[in-house]
Amino acid sequence: MKGKIGLVTLGVADVAASGRFYDALGFRRHEQDSDAIIFYALEGTWLAIFSRAALAQDAGIEDGGAASFSGITLAHNVPEPGGVDAALDEAVRAGARIVKPAADTFWGGRSGYFADPDGHLWEIAWNPFQDLT
Amino acid sequence: MKGKIGLVTLGVADVAASGRFYDALGFRRHEQDSDAIIFYALEGTWLAIFSRAALAQDAGIEDGGAASFSGITLAHNVPEPGGVDAALDEAVRAGARIVKPAADTFWGGRSGYFADPDGHLWEIAWNPFQDLT
Repeated sequence: MKGKIGLVTLGVADVAASGRFYDALGFRRHEQDSDAIIFYALEGTWLAIFSRAALAQDAGIEDGGAASFSGITLAHNVPEPGGVDAALDEAVRAGARIVKPAADTFWGGRSGYFADPDGHLWEIAWNPFQDLT
Repeated sequence: MKGKIGLVTLGVADVAASGRFYDALGFRRHEQDSDAIIFYALEGTWLAIFSRAALAQDAGIEDGGAASFSGITLAHNVPEPGGVDAALDEAVRAGARIVKPAADTFWGGRSGYFADPDGHLWEIAWNPFQDLT
């Protein structure tokens, strides 16, 4: 199996509202979107926004409700330390909740976390040792 | 904010065991890995395997335990319909649990789901309309 994540799908309570959030973050929609699912043609790996109930049904599993921690985080890397603070500010303006404010890390970078409207966790990170921007 | 997911981090119970699973899937480790975290330099977006407890701590949130459904799925796309079955077979040999066997979809593709050792959901998909391989 080739090493690639082609698409990350976030299950959400309100597809339209989450779409407005990711639009406001500056993500660009793919033209083939519909009311039921929204695709963002991100660089490298796409992002899909889909009803949480429909996503569970598609996978054929029971949804017993969200946990306090999903066990997964998505990271967005920025090329400068100040970019962490700027991106978190931008996320707040889009409607995000700050989970962990920007701070220098023990490993020599800088990072912070925000939660999207459904609590999906995004880390904004500056990593001086590895360029994932 | 530029539209890019630089890294997806999966919180796991046993980093070494999950590393063996993703190694067996054919993913290639980045040379800077450590015992605490394993990075896979995937095409487009990297994958990190990190202790679930440490990941929750890094984000500064309480972990009340895993839900039956995390609310997130990762997709790996293949270029031929038969590739869905082949990739699911490969995942099973690596130690995955099949969540939904390969089947044709209502939208004209073919897909199936497996769960990694911690229940993280991967969809294997063939999409004749959009090439995400």
